[in-house]
Amino acid sequence: MSEKKMVYLFDEGSKEMKNLLGGKGANLSEMVGLNIPVPPGFIITTEVCNDYYENDSSFPETLREQVKSAISSIEKKMSMRFGDPEDPLLFSVRSGARISMPGMMDTILNLGINRDIVKGLIKRSGDERFAWDTYRRFIQMYGDVVLGIGDSFDDDVDPFEDELARLKLEKGVNYDSDLSGPDLEVLSTNFIKIIKDRLNIDFPDDPWDQLWGAVGAVFSSWRNKRAITYRNMNSIPSIWGTAVNVQSMVFGNMGEGCATGVAFTRDPSTGRNVFYGEYLQNAQGEDVVAGIRTPLQVTKRGSMEWAVHNGTSEAERLNKHLSLEEIMPGIFKELEKTYLQLEAHYHDMQDIEFTIQNGVLWLLQTRTGKRTAAAAIKIAVDMVNEGLITKKEAILRVEPEQLDQLLHPAFDMEKKGEVIARGLPASPGAATGQIVFNADDAETLSSDGDRVILVRIETSPEDIGGMKSSEGILTARGGMTSHAAVVARGMGKCCVSGCSDLNISYKDGNMKIGDRVLSKGEWISLNGSTGEIMLGMTPTKPPSIGGDFKTLMSWADQFKKLGVRTNADTPEDAKVAREFGAEGIGLCRTEHMFFEGERILAMRKMILSETEEERVAALDQLLPMQKEDFKGIFREMDGFPVTIRLLDPPLHEFLPHDQEAKIEVARELGITMEHLEMKISSLKEFNPMLGHRGCRLGITYPEITKMQATAIVEAAVASNNEGIVVSPEIMIPLVGVRKELENQRNIISEIIERVFTEMGTRIDIKIGTMIEIPRAALTADEIARSADFFSFGTNDLTQMTFGYSRDDSSTFLPEYVDKNILSEDPFKVLDGEGVGQLVKMGTKKGRSTNPLLKVGICGEHGGEPSSIKFCHDTGLDYVSCSPYRVPIARLSAAHSNISDEI
Amino acid sequence: MSEKKMVYLFDEGSKEMKNLLGGKGANLSEMVGLNIPVPPGFIITTEVCNDYYENDSSFPETLREQVKSAISSIEKKMSMRFGDPEDPLLFSVRSGARISMPGMMDTILNLGINRDIVKGLIKRSGDERFAWDTYRRFIQMYGDVVLGIGDSFDDDVDPFEDELARLKLEKGVNYDSDLSGPDLEVLSTNFIKIIKDRLNIDFPDDPWDQLWGAVGAVFSSWRNKRAITYRNMNSIPSIWGTAVNVQSMVFGNMGEGCATGVAFTRDPSTGRNVFYGEYLQNAQGEDVVAGIRTPLQVTKRGSMEWAVHNGTSEAERLNKHLSLEEIMPGIFKELEKTYLQLEAHYHDMQDIEFTIQNGVLWLLQTRTGKRTAAAAIKIAVDMVNEGLITKKEAILRVEPEQLDQLLHPAFDMEKKGEVIARGLPASPGAATGQIVFNADDAETLSSDGDRVILVRIETSPEDIGGMKSSEGILTARGGMTSHAAVVARGMGKCCVSGCSDLNISYKDGNMKIGDRVLSKGEWISLNGSTGEIMLGMTPTKPPSIGGDFKTLMSWADQFKKLGVRTNADTPEDAKVAREFGAEGIGLCRTEHMFFEGERILAMRKMILSETEEERVAALDQLLPMQKEDFKGIFREMDGFPVTIRLLDPPLHEFLPHDQEAKIEVARELGITMEHLEMKISSLKEFNPMLGHRGCRLGITYPEITKMQATAIVEAAVASNNEGIVVSPEIMIPLVGVRKELENQRNIISEIIERVFTEMGTRIDIKIGTMIEIPRAALTADEIARSADFFSFGTNDLTQMTFGYSRDDSSTFLPEYVDKNILSEDPFKVLDGEGVGQLVKMGTKKGRSTNPLLKVGICGEHGGEPSSIKFCHDTGLDYVSCSPYRVPIARLSAAHSNISDEI
Repeated sequence: MSEKKMVYLFDEGSKEMKNLLGGKGANLSEMVGLNIPVPPGFIITTEVCNDYYENDSSFPETLREQVKSAISSIEKKMSMRFGDPEDPLLFSVRSGARISMPGMMDTILNLGINRDIVKGLIKRSGDERFAWDTYRRFIQMYGDVVLGIGDSFDDDVDPFEDELARLKLEKGVNYDSDLSGPDLEVLSTNFIKIIKDRLNIDFPDDPWDQLWGAVGAVFSSWRNKRAITYRNMNSIPSIWGTAVNVQSMVFGNMGEGCATGVAFTRDPSTGRNVFYGEYLQNAQGEDVVAGIRTPLQVTKRGSMEWAVHNGTSEAERLNKHLSLEEIMPGIFKELEKTYLQLEAHYHDMQDIEFTIQNGVLWLLQTRTGKRTAAAAIKIAVDMVNEGLITKKEAILRVEPEQLDQLLHPAFDMEKKGEVIARGLPASPGAATGQIVFNADDAETLSSDGDRVILVRIETSPEDIGGMKSSEGILTARGGMTSHAAVVARGMGKCCVSGCSDLNISYKDGNMKIGDRVLSKGEWISLNGSTGEIMLGMTPTKPPSIGGDFKTLMSWADQFKKLGVRTNADTPEDAKVAREFGAEGIGLCRTEHMFFEGERILAMRKMILSETEEERVAALDQLLPMQKEDFKGIFREMDGFPVTIRLLDPPLHEFLPHDQEAKIEVARELGITMEHLEMKISSLKEFNPMLGHRGCRLGITYPEITKMQATAIVEAAVASNNEGIVVSPEIMIPLVGVRKELENQRNIISEIIERVFTEMGTRIDIKIGTMIEIPRAALTADEIARSADFFSFGTNDLTQMTFGYSRDDSSTFLPEYVDKNILSEDPFKVLDGEGVGQLVKMGTKKGRSTNPLLKVGICGEHGGEPSSIKFCHDTGLDYVSCSPYRVPIARLSAAHSNISDEI
Repeated sequence: MSEKKMVYLFDEGSKEMKNLLGGKGANLSEMVGLNIPVPPGFIITTEVCNDYYENDSSFPETLREQVKSAISSIEKKMSMRFGDPEDPLLFSVRSGARISMPGMMDTILNLGINRDIVKGLIKRSGDERFAWDTYRRFIQMYGDVVLGIGDSFDDDVDPFEDELARLKLEKGVNYDSDLSGPDLEVLSTNFIKIIKDRLNIDFPDDPWDQLWGAVGAVFSSWRNKRAITYRNMNSIPSIWGTAVNVQSMVFGNMGEGCATGVAFTRDPSTGRNVFYGEYLQNAQGEDVVAGIRTPLQVTKRGSMEWAVHNGTSEAERLNKHLSLEEIMPGIFKELEKTYLQLEAHYHDMQDIEFTIQNGVLWLLQTRTGKRTAAAAIKIAVDMVNEGLITKKEAILRVEPEQLDQLLHPAFDMEKKGEVIARGLPASPGAATGQIVFNADDAETLSSDGDRVILVRIETSPEDIGGMKSSEGILTARGGMTSHAAVVARGMGKCCVSGCSDLNISYKDGNMKIGDRVLSKGEWISLNGSTGEIMLGMTPTKPPSIGGDFKTLMSWADQFKKLGVRTNADTPEDAKVAREFGAEGIGLCRTEHMFFEGERILAMRKMILSETEEERVAALDQLLPMQKEDFKGIFREMDGFPVTIRLLDPPLHEFLPHDQEAKIEVARELGITMEHLEMKISSLKEFNPMLGHRGCRLGITYPEITKMQATAIVEAAVASNNEGIVVSPEIMIPLVGVRKELENQRNIISEIIERVFTEMGTRIDIKIGTMIEIPRAALTADEIARSADFFSFGTNDLTQMTFGYSRDDSSTFLPEYVDKNILSEDPFKVLDGEGVGQLVKMGTKKGRSTNPLLKVGICGEHGGEPSSIKFCHDTGLDYVSCSPYRVPIARLSAAHSNISDEI
């Protein structure tokens, strides 16, 4: 058996070998291949990680030999020797898995040092302080990371930092850098003593012992708790393992001719094609990140912008803060050449780390740079224009979920107020306003020009007017798909829901968070993307959808296969959705039309009717209003299909809930309070979600279906006659049994025929159903015989498949996700394993008996990228989501289709 | 192409030809084959019915020819001629489908008659009155059934009966039989005039026209509305069609030597092996059924019993009412011989019709006789003892659902009170008592020896004590599986639920039904088998489970494959169930143990705890009580498995609901009312059925699971040490995700290990789960990896698969069944098409990864025969049902298995 290769020198690898060498090592190797100056080093492969675990955390002998041989090869290149006080070669040791993974061991610098070697280092560098600083840093990192001194005590005090602080106090200095070489020698001695005292370990002096200790620590960190949790949450197999990168040290802290920095090849926040980086002279890498000293700009341009941003005058700045470009123009040229080479090679914006040691540039890392949504779009579009990438690649460069940042107002995060509580990020965006506790106040104050935040224990359909008038909505109860959340998302309005720390008293007109009491009129701010609730007014900036955004979206449309429709209930929503690129309406909820102004009165009359005649009379009042709504929607959706769902919620939702409103209704309807109370109580249900709603209403009260069908068909024919291209799709909700659909279909078909005859025009009208009851999916073959289309209502379907009430699940769902019983909230991300089975089954069975069946989805999942991918894979015809998620859906749909081709 | 045979003479058929000849025709043919005297006739096959519809309701020419030839063959046998005034042969025409089917055309007698033929008939019979009566009867029947005169008017007045009444008034007579020949001639003329006036039809004089009209009417009746509805409800294919039976008339009304009667070969109400029949002298068959004259007994013995029952003295009776046996002893002997022959031939009790024409006996029909449950059992057991049938046949002779009659008290239906309202037949049996409106009153009054009916808007677990103390329970809300219904069935107590006509005012201490007001203390009676509510006290008789019952059940156990367990929560229930033959407990609901006495206080303390420590302290109080419960149950179930389900309902169910109770709880727990109210309101859920319950509780409060597991395991080990054979099965409710089960399983396994170690004994304890969430069935392969057993909780599974709340569905489910959107209430009969798919899928997937998995069902369906058949077919290991349905389940299980072999 030939010996397995366990160790790769950087010049033996390439970026394609990520699985074996880890991401960091593969990229270091790639740079070496490009002749970019990288401190020599080697990689212990990810396979060794598994061997290590299989062999009781011990290293195979062959590994030791291969490492030795790699090191001697590096010694030759560097003309230095590991462990040799004369010419000491030091190493950094880093973990490096296939993909970047939090929770694992990060970095040990300066490995291969001891008191003897310090002395050699002093001799070579002529810098006593540098040498002792290098040693004490090593002891500190090794003590923390390899020996785990932090884990040995319950308190949060870092004994090393404690000792450092003590010494500075003793010496009467402020900064680490004010400590002298001898000070640092003392510190090193004390650090070693701390380790001996606390862990009863003799600090390893032998560089080889240090090396193997560090390698073992990297492997062990692959199985620490945080790493395991992260892997479970992200479905990363344990078998992947981590590699270990061992690299020669170069020093940015050996004097003024040294520096270290990080840079992005383009601006990561705007995407502009300018080099953007920060550096520190005479510093080691960790100092840039740690923020002890403020880093300076790499370029002149960056320097100027920095000055403007920080408000100092130009003259002052030029004196105080020179850019690297100015200080070391030759090195900068070399850096510029290198970054351009890297970007051209990787075809993407790079995030690089570099160190300058005595006037020599070294690259320590390159990787794809993280960026904001705006930057991602601009970089992608620019790179297509620059001929660097294809349109498809550009599309894949932007994460759909990122777009959300661009579609809502956002806070200026540098001026953020105190976070006083946290709820669920129910509807993204930022809002700031004065607290009100009821919808009426919201409407009144906002009509006076005030900005308000509506705070409710929970919202109900009666609050819709107030929600519209508010900047944002905050509720104490309800989950991601509670009434408040769903309606707010539909409106594109910021909402934080289910904030259980909130103790609202309507009576006292205030809310308590812990000991803090906030009253009506006080300012708060909501971050709907994070769920944060902040004290006071926080400035917001409006969404910006630039030209690049439009360009990218048009490319997405070219490559997607899924249609993208919207959930919209009003002409206004429909208009917004069209602007966002919706190709029709997938769900128009007619019940939302019944809450405004005098409609709610007519609706209440209908519900409180004792006889069919009375009910028909009340419905006749509603008919012209509904008809006008539909006409408005058809106008906005000229040329696109409009799916209209018939009345869905239980009737009691329309009844007044508070005493005042009840008295008003009783008076206006001319019935006694007693009668009203009786009717309300007879409509009360134990589990309204499973009660008398959806098509069950249309079956027991066919006159409701008749009215709605009449309104739709008359509006459609009238719009058609005005030259608008209409294609209405009438959708029956909550069907579980084919005969329910047949019953409603017959009623509607009769109405259609009657209206066509009366109006003398015939148009194409489809009749279909929601699939939102598990039984509907199970018997979809039967149901499809009576349906022109299916639309999966995955909110209800999730609710019933899991048996989780959307309104109540906040008592246990968050804990389920925390405990990893569920990897995601299934109301947010479609549960492919369970609910998804029903979606697949329903689609397959439905098409088996009705091959022309059109199939879509209109739950909240229709706007969530991984769920959209599922819909694409399942072969649905379209997804439908709230207007503000339409671009996300379009991009996700394109991603899904392009990934199929890869 | 050879001509299709469309017509069969009776001597060409047999009982095996039911599909072609219909049930009635096949049996008539069979009797002919047995040389039993049957008036000759022929059958037009069921196939012709389909031809008739395919040919636009016209008769094929070949049919006319075959009918002609059949009639001439009959004419020869009878020496009479159809349509010949000299020697007129008359026919009866009857429909006859494969199985007896209501809604279809019944009978036309005396066909082939007109004024000329009447005269011939007078000449031959010498009885003018008889001849004209025959004619007028024919016109009346033909006018009603073939010409449909009843359908031509909206009102309910039968114009013929109207005319008859008018004539009697005119003639000053009381009875039809008092009208003379000439009177009846006038009546005939007037009948024909009525038909002409109302329908503008000349009444057909030609016997052949009459015949074809009647045949067409039979075929048409196959597609009338009632017949179609019946077929849809019973899944009878339309293609089966109906046959037409044409049979020579014989007359029981040609004088005192004539008679007609119906009889059962054994007593249909007791099953005793005695001939039981009624007859009328000088009458046509319809007179016996119509009840105008009171029929007399066929046998002496029957006559005597009749006299005793009617309270007349022996002497009087002997004078007034002679039996057929006494009047026509020769004919009786012949009848006796015939019935014995028929019973021996059919191996079953027969229901026969006969006519005696001038001293000659004719049999007109034989069919399997309907019987009561008690009779069915006695006949079946007797016939096995007589060697007539096998044990398997005996088992199949008793419908499982019938047993229910025997297992509960029943009303003496002849002394029934006025029915004032109707609810759902939620739990069978009969109850009579005084109205009380709350559980406390029920307990107080019943302890004083009063019999009470507990009337509630709905019941809650707090009412359990009151329910136990009542004779029966009546609720205004809630369906067949509401709390009241489920608990009552478990107790074997009569319950009528969801009576929406009931308007209960707790405040006023009364209830309204329409205008009627009933107050506390008034007597009412409930029929839990029909849902009827009756005014006043109605005598009841206790259930009787005789020796034959036991015998039959023991045979059933020999032949069944499915295990039958019971749902029992207390040692008392367990005892009853064992007496009824339960082979273990399939569902022991632990929450019912928490409602009694001081337990509810400890439970409330637990729920109201703010910290885990407080909660554990309260649970520690409950532990010894639960342990004692389990020990009691293990004792009763010595040798049988006991499946114990951990806490299932949402916690707020345990909280007090009314003000008084709240004050008490707050005081006893030493907390403020404000605190209590806050906690109650924070536990309130919008849809508790889909909320924080089942294993979700055990996951968020693991200490509850720990307490319950400790109680079970300690009780089991202690019982084992006392020599009782225990096999506990711990069941986790409401699992939808495998990790939920794993989480709970781990907690329980730790407890098991701890208790085993502490007590030094190890026993076999299984851990499994309910499958009641659709997702659990969909992912059963995964879940089964962590389960020793599955138990389908088909109540919840139905609830979530259909999206029907058990507590709220009464607002639409009854209408769904009425409108045939659903053929059955799916909470009563398992929905094989939808919910059943999940049961099959769950079983198959579960066993695919865990072949040793034990699978049962413990929903309400576990006691319903067709659902049990489904469970058998699906290959489940056992069903579990309430104690009072165990015999039904045992018999159903035997039926299912025996039918497999056929």
